[in-house]
Amino acid sequence: MANAIRALSMDAVQQANSGHPGTPMGMADIAEVLWNDYLKHNPANPNWSNRDRFVLSNGHGSILLYALLHLCGYDLSIEELMNFCQLHSKTPGHPEYGCTPGVEATTGPLGQGVANAVGMALAEKVLAAQFNRPGYKLINHHTYVFMGDGCLMEGISHEVCSLAGTLGLGKLIAFYDDNGISDDGQIEGWFTDDTPKRFESYHWHVIPNVDGHDAIAIKAAIEKAHACSDKPTIICCKTVIGFGSPNKQGRKECHGQPLGEDEIALVRKTIGWDHPPFKIPEDIYAYWDQRSKGKALEKEWKGLFAKYREEYPEMAFEFVRRQSGKLPPDFLVKADSYIKQCQKDALRIPSRKASQNTLNVYGPLLPELLGGSADLAGPCFSLWSGSKRLNKKDASGNYIHYGVREFGMSAIMNGIALHGGFIPYGATFLVFMEYARNAVRMAALMKQQVIFVYTHDSIGIGENGPTHQPVEQLSALRSTPNLHTWRPCDTTESAVSWKMAITRKEGPTALIFSRQDLAPQERNTTQITQIEKGGYVLSDCEGAPEAIIIATGSEVEQAIAAKRKLTSKRIRVVSMPCIETFLEQEEPYRESVLPSTLRVRVVEEASHKDYWHKFVGFDGEIIGMDNFGKSAPGQEVMQYFEFTAEKVIESIERLLK
Amino acid sequence: MANAIRALSMDAVQQANSGHPGTPMGMADIAEVLWNDYLKHNPANPNWSNRDRFVLSNGHGSILLYALLHLCGYDLSIEELMNFCQLHSKTPGHPEYGCTPGVEATTGPLGQGVANAVGMALAEKVLAAQFNRPGYKLINHHTYVFMGDGCLMEGISHEVCSLAGTLGLGKLIAFYDDNGISDDGQIEGWFTDDTPKRFESYHWHVIPNVDGHDAIAIKAAIEKAHACSDKPTIICCKTVIGFGSPNKQGRKECHGQPLGEDEIALVRKTIGWDHPPFKIPEDIYAYWDQRSKGKALEKEWKGLFAKYREEYPEMAFEFVRRQSGKLPPDFLVKADSYIKQCQKDALRIPSRKASQNTLNVYGPLLPELLGGSADLAGPCFSLWSGSKRLNKKDASGNYIHYGVREFGMSAIMNGIALHGGFIPYGATFLVFMEYARNAVRMAALMKQQVIFVYTHDSIGIGENGPTHQPVEQLSALRSTPNLHTWRPCDTTESAVSWKMAITRKEGPTALIFSRQDLAPQERNTTQITQIEKGGYVLSDCEGAPEAIIIATGSEVEQAIAAKRKLTSKRIRVVSMPCIETFLEQEEPYRESVLPSTLRVRVVEEASHKDYWHKFVGFDGEIIGMDNFGKSAPGQEVMQYFEFTAEKVIESIERLLK
Repeated sequence: MANAIRALSMDAVQQANSGHPGTPMGMADIAEVLWNDYLKHNPANPNWSNRDRFVLSNGHGSILLYALLHLCGYDLSIEELMNFCQLHSKTPGHPEYGCTPGVEATTGPLGQGVANAVGMALAEKVLAAQFNRPGYKLINHHTYVFMGDGCLMEGISHEVCSLAGTLGLGKLIAFYDDNGISDDGQIEGWFTDDTPKRFESYHWHVIPNVDGHDAIAIKAAIEKAHACSDKPTIICCKTVIGFGSPNKQGRKECHGQPLGEDEIALVRKTIGWDHPPFKIPEDIYAYWDQRSKGKALEKEWKGLFAKYREEYPEMAFEFVRRQSGKLPPDFLVKADSYIKQCQKDALRIPSRKASQNTLNVYGPLLPELLGGSADLAGPCFSLWSGSKRLNKKDASGNYIHYGVREFGMSAIMNGIALHGGFIPYGATFLVFMEYARNAVRMAALMKQQVIFVYTHDSIGIGENGPTHQPVEQLSALRSTPNLHTWRPCDTTESAVSWKMAITRKEGPTALIFSRQDLAPQERNTTQITQIEKGGYVLSDCEGAPEAIIIATGSEVEQAIAAKRKLTSKRIRVVSMPCIETFLEQEEPYRESVLPSTLRVRVVEEASHKDYWHKFVGFDGEIIGMDNFGKSAPGQEVMQYFEFTAEKVIESIERLLK
Repeated sequence: MANAIRALSMDAVQQANSGHPGTPMGMADIAEVLWNDYLKHNPANPNWSNRDRFVLSNGHGSILLYALLHLCGYDLSIEELMNFCQLHSKTPGHPEYGCTPGVEATTGPLGQGVANAVGMALAEKVLAAQFNRPGYKLINHHTYVFMGDGCLMEGISHEVCSLAGTLGLGKLIAFYDDNGISDDGQIEGWFTDDTPKRFESYHWHVIPNVDGHDAIAIKAAIEKAHACSDKPTIICCKTVIGFGSPNKQGRKECHGQPLGEDEIALVRKTIGWDHPPFKIPEDIYAYWDQRSKGKALEKEWKGLFAKYREEYPEMAFEFVRRQSGKLPPDFLVKADSYIKQCQKDALRIPSRKASQNTLNVYGPLLPELLGGSADLAGPCFSLWSGSKRLNKKDASGNYIHYGVREFGMSAIMNGIALHGGFIPYGATFLVFMEYARNAVRMAALMKQQVIFVYTHDSIGIGENGPTHQPVEQLSALRSTPNLHTWRPCDTTESAVSWKMAITRKEGPTALIFSRQDLAPQERNTTQITQIEKGGYVLSDCEGAPEAIIIATGSEVEQAIAAKRKLTSKRIRVVSMPCIETFLEQEEPYRESVLPSTLRVRVVEEASHKDYWHKFVGFDGEIIGMDNFGKSAPGQEVMQYFEFTAEKVIESIERLLK
């Protein structure tokens, strides 16, 4: 049965002249046992909430997953497999969430699939703690992950496996494809970890030395894994990469290239597979078909849920709401009311504190919020009054102390979002977004609602110096497709930015907050509403403006101060907390804020200049950074780098001369 | 004696009202033993090539290092300590390389200091293998690193410690400050690793359970570490954070905030330190003073070197050259000759292959080149004909298989550069720069010559799909202060980009190469020379141009094709392989390439659009990306996203209408 996977894999890779046949052929036996005998899923409904999750962290072996989905009866035709890696096929080079039914996560960047799986297992544990009741194991599924040597070399595997051990994620089962080969060849020159011992040091349940080509041994290992409920399990499988290829198995030659027609013919002989490419005999299809079993599984669960609904109608209603991703009906009204209150209260506080104040209001409305921070809960103000820490024994909380693991946190949040039932947020300093950078990109690529909270947003943080002072990080975030980045200027904009992050379902949002106090800005009712448009006229002049000052975050108050002093000029100040949202507005609105004929424009933002040329062209000026920061008290650093109202005035006067 | 550190630390943090007193007070005893009894260094010459290296990976405890340097007699006055965290002081919030004599690496972003230390220990091992001769241990020093729980939670610690174990870096000695506290408090909720077991799994020499406040136990551990020459050593020190503070020790309250005047007074009583702030008694200064000992140590080494010079005059000459960072005298001439040859040969090959061809010519001239890749030596073409793999037993090679460890590789390269004697380069795919992003920034911040080789540079890579196709990564690199990024368009530009990277001593360079073939471009002698200016007129028109097409890398050939078809227009094509270098040119040159009055400009580059507004203003057009890529054969992806000569022609015609 596993040979069906081998044949499909080698043939698809050969046809595409691209891909990785070695992993699928090496892991085929493990996959066959897991998918046929253990995985609880329903090919007809890949969104069944209590399905087991499966993540292929070694995503370059994508054809393995496509073969499994096809054979089990998912909506993935043989033609799609024949179109492996072709434009608009459902079988791209790496598995893509949202593209192929049954693919649970976009994988390929190594180590992140394991992290996603940890996030899924964590989501399962928390959701179960929140919704399960005696006799009703509504949420009760495993998360399985395949990972290779590459995943285990990556640092993120340390971060997330260490945390998974600490949190005792007993329903996480990882299969380590220990084949001794990576892209550079035999790994002994660069990877000699004693992996079982390493995972023991993380307090995992370790099953070493399993023959990955022995179905009975694999079954026994899975049974042992299922029997252990308080620790995640790693099943270390010795496999032969490219198993079945007489001249290439066990060698790097089968890792990242097609086997070649001649070798494929030899494989067919070796494994006794005499069917032509992409032809699977009906009896083999019948063996693999999981549709009726899957349908029955979901039906059984639906029966359980129907009873649950009778006994716990409100919770059942809430469960459905949470699964659907819909917000509570009163959220928007209450958020808008709080936003108005912020405007009225006009507090002069750091926006990191404004963020926390907002969480204190929105948090109680949103049980789906699953917060956390990378060991900076205090400085990031990411704990709110209702935050309750999760731990190994009690998963009913809503806050995860991720430890100093920015990348792990971010990719785990992606896994939580992929699982469903939660809106995850996680906090660290803006500069350390860089540690997690590719997970932020993956959230955007997978269109997941993940909220990245980044405080300490500029050189204004002061004493910690250039290692901790962001400069170019906002440019990186703003250049990321499908990511929205908000940098609010006061409490009102902070409350709006959280509202926008919570209502944005089609992708991640980065919220950027200051360490230092920010002055409250005056606004009328229309202006309060316009914050949601991402950019708006915060302070206008009589008549047509001669010049526009655009600013964000902590620089807005300097822009306003500059305008106040420039009494003889007609100046407009535009606050631009979220460029991506502003650019999504209709053209007339954008034109009303930034008339295209008015090119006398000054941007002030304490981040890298280059990004802002988009808004000033050749005729305006940018007051920004083009070098690293300095260690000194925050106000002095701002002065040193000339983020002052005076500098804005100079620019305006120069441009209007 | 350790109390001098405690007093200086708590007083400086108090005076600055910023900083971390807990770590210095907790590690003071370890530091006292190491620095007074073992560290071989000369305060009068922090650049002595055979000094022991010391890295404070938990860089937030910077004041510990400043106190040590001050007490040992480095050029760091007590006034500087009193000015902790003040503008232009030599005592910034985190240790900064180049700012303070004796600081070996800029640290603070956790885990990277350990990685730098691994790089230093590796550099020591390779340099020793290259230069030491029987009776002449010219290079023979230890690398010590302090690290806290934060460093050990970070994924990069896994990458680099795993590799350090594999490579058997026996002169690397790490002190783990096991104090049980991180910023969020007691770590048991988020960090429960069995760290000794973890490091055993990496094949380190592990010394567990050392009392970090017992000088005799610390000494015994260091002696054991010195006795082990084939494995790196970790000394796990149980310490009390903020040791000596009666009310705050052992608690997170002393981690990241001043102790407060009252508590400081109590500490003075507790530890029996009755001197006023910043007053150190003369006898304590005398005890700490390492100047005469250090002078003698260097003198002894100089004697050894003088004999070595007699016996091996050429090698001694080469050693001095390598230490000074000067290139071999014939390098420039030979490089220029090769560049001309490239132009003549006019090969149509991928620039990744052009990169390898260049290495085959430059490599033999540059024994200081220490190459490597993150498990992508094949696809990145980063091995050249003279590459010889390093391993545990034989460190005389010049190529490191870093494994799938992009971040580790990059931060290790920073450590190699900081050590001196080498020009490190390391290769991976451009998109995976993101895994290593903060190390690239740190190289730029520390002004280190590190060459980051990034292949697979755009959606043009094809089948691997959006996870592997860079979009916004070039923007991130170009926005990094003090980083030069080259994206050459053919073999000639590739050879120039390597030359520029090798001659640039004041910071890192990123070299961006394609997977796919690039057409060779025609150039006259002047144009060949002008490549070094970062941007130049590759193809001009008769008379003043009506429009300019700016392109880089794989898009240059499309720009040229568009120009050829636009016979009725006066078009100039500018190739812009390195924007940073172009912007460093004198204004007249820049103006001669891009006349500021000529605003009809089209940029074509298969990367994120936004960066390029800087060059087109409001009146030009950008053909670029603003979304993620697609899995399909490379040419089809380029077509799908409309990177074609036709699209360039359309833009030009629209602008000139």
